[in-house]
Amino acid sequence: MSDAEFSVPLRVYIEDTDAGGIVYYVNYLKFMERARTEFMRARGFGKQYIFTHELMFVVSDARIHYRSPARLDDELRATACLTRLRGASLEFHQRVLRGEEPLAQADIKIACVNRSSMQVQRIPPELGERLAAWVQQSD
Amino acid sequence: MSDAEFSVPLRVYIEDTDAGGIVYYVNYLKFMERARTEFMRARGFGKQYIFTHELMFVVSDARIHYRSPARLDDELRATACLTRLRGASLEFHQRVLRGEEPLAQADIKIACVNRSSMQVQRIPPELGERLAAWVQQSD
Amino acid sequence: MSDAEFSVPLRVYIEDTDAGGIVYYVNYLKFMERARTEFMRARGFGKQYIFTHELMFVVSDARIHYRSPARLDDELRATACLTRLRGASLEFHQRVLRGEEPLAQADIKIACVNRSSMQVQRIPPELGERLAAWVQQSD
Amino acid sequence: MSDAEFSVPLRVYIEDTDAGGIVYYVNYLKFMERARTEFMRARGFGKQYIFTHELMFVVSDARIHYRSPARLDDELRATACLTRLRGASLEFHQRVLRGEEPLAQADIKIACVNRSSMQVQRIPPELGERLAAWVQQSD
Repeated sequence: MSDAEFSVPLRVYIEDTDAGGIVYYVNYLKFMERARTEFMRARGFGKQYIFTHELMFVVSDARIHYRSPARLDDELRATACLTRLRGASLEFHQRVLRGEEPLAQADIKIACVNRSSMQVQRIPPELGERLAAWVQQSD
Repeated sequence: MSDAEFSVPLRVYIEDTDAGGIVYYVNYLKFMERARTEFMRARGFGKQYIFTHELMFVVSDARIHYRSPARLDDELRATACLTRLRGASLEFHQRVLRGEEPLAQADIKIACVNRSSMQVQRIPPELGERLAAWVQQSD
Repeated sequence: MSDAEFSVPLRVYIEDTDAGGIVYYVNYLKFMERARTEFMRARGFGKQYIFTHELMFVVSDARIHYRSPARLDDELRATACLTRLRGASLEFHQRVLRGEEPLAQADIKIACVNRSSMQVQRIPPELGERLAAWVQQSD
Repeated sequence: MSDAEFSVPLRVYIEDTDAGGIVYYVNYLKFMERARTEFMRARGFGKQYIFTHELMFVVSDARIHYRSPARLDDELRATACLTRLRGASLEFHQRVLRGEEPLAQADIKIACVNRSSMQVQRIPPELGERLAAWVQQSD
């Protein structure tokens, strides 16, 4: 993955942990979503854009592999790499790292749907064109 | 508090805990909200009623006291006792118990607001009249 | 999947939803974990058993497919079907349904680890033998 | 409150919201805890210090008032002002703001307890002395 890999910094708070003393595994998906959200915002497509266009991006498939646990106070990074762009869906490869150590990695497929009907809808051209420049091959 | 105290049973799952090995204190407010929701539903006012009447009930004040921690696998009860009914607000006294042991207690004030404007709005008469029968004095 | 499919009933509360007006997709994994936890408890292996044996079961892989959103107040069921038992891991096939309508399905792989070292550890014989009787083929 | 008011910046993500389209009220307590955690860390008392001293700081009382809702994508600040220091407890006054607009404010009382026994325990002298310099009067 290139040096240009997009990422956001994260701190692990008590709210993120569970009685096992580690980050509750479900919460890695929240961390990854923060990275996707910032990836989109950095390209001009905040949630407001998406909501005002009567769109919603909803996760249709997620595949996540956990390698090593994160703990309270850890400083992490969540990455977002756009790996595929289709007419009505996006795919991201994402990781959560502590320093250079990968703790979790995931492939997340996202469908573009109409906000009211929840029916699949084509990605608007200006969004698709802008995103096309950012598609990278996954490692 | 009377024998008629309304309550819902709860099980503590790993999702509810934190790295201290106990239930994350914030989550007692979720438990209590489940009890309020079921209290309202049992009286014919599910969230659907509330949403379709363009209302929202929003918490405006919460005061919570924690006495003893709950742990993984505990079987708890969350209670909801309506202690005050005003033109545009409700007040509940609530507890979370493990058997007869009180773990937390709270007073929660809820405002009735318009769903779009978020402005305070009078409680609809049919709702107010029905709820009036359930007001109890707090212990 | 057989009629004997293990499941737990669930109610969708406001805590489970997001600003899209639907259940926040991450929370389906919590619902599924509740079903796994009850599946294990029903067979005599509550979290207390697991913790006192210095074990932890941690999710190592999750693959989830979302078909249709759940909404506030929905009554759901989360299922847990044990599909594979290995020396140090378990696999579950799980679904979340509203009535007979499947909303989400997942395959969850769980590793048995030592609670202190987080190193992979063999499943204790009495646990493995008891669980072996419950392995079913996934649909 | 002085210009020196300690605060941390926050972004509202979809994980923080509910079906009312606003930040789920319970989550303000998470935001405030992040501010308290960073307040303590900035003074040399990260959670690691606390855990290794067999201590835990647990919330014993919380009083929170909600004035105005936060929404998706909002940039917020959570403040933490230490208002009282006793032998075995701390009190914070905290706010969540959007720009200069206060959205919520709370008084949070925290007890120092032994991590194993959960019994109240005196705050260690080096911690108490260091914190004493930071006590401010609440507004």
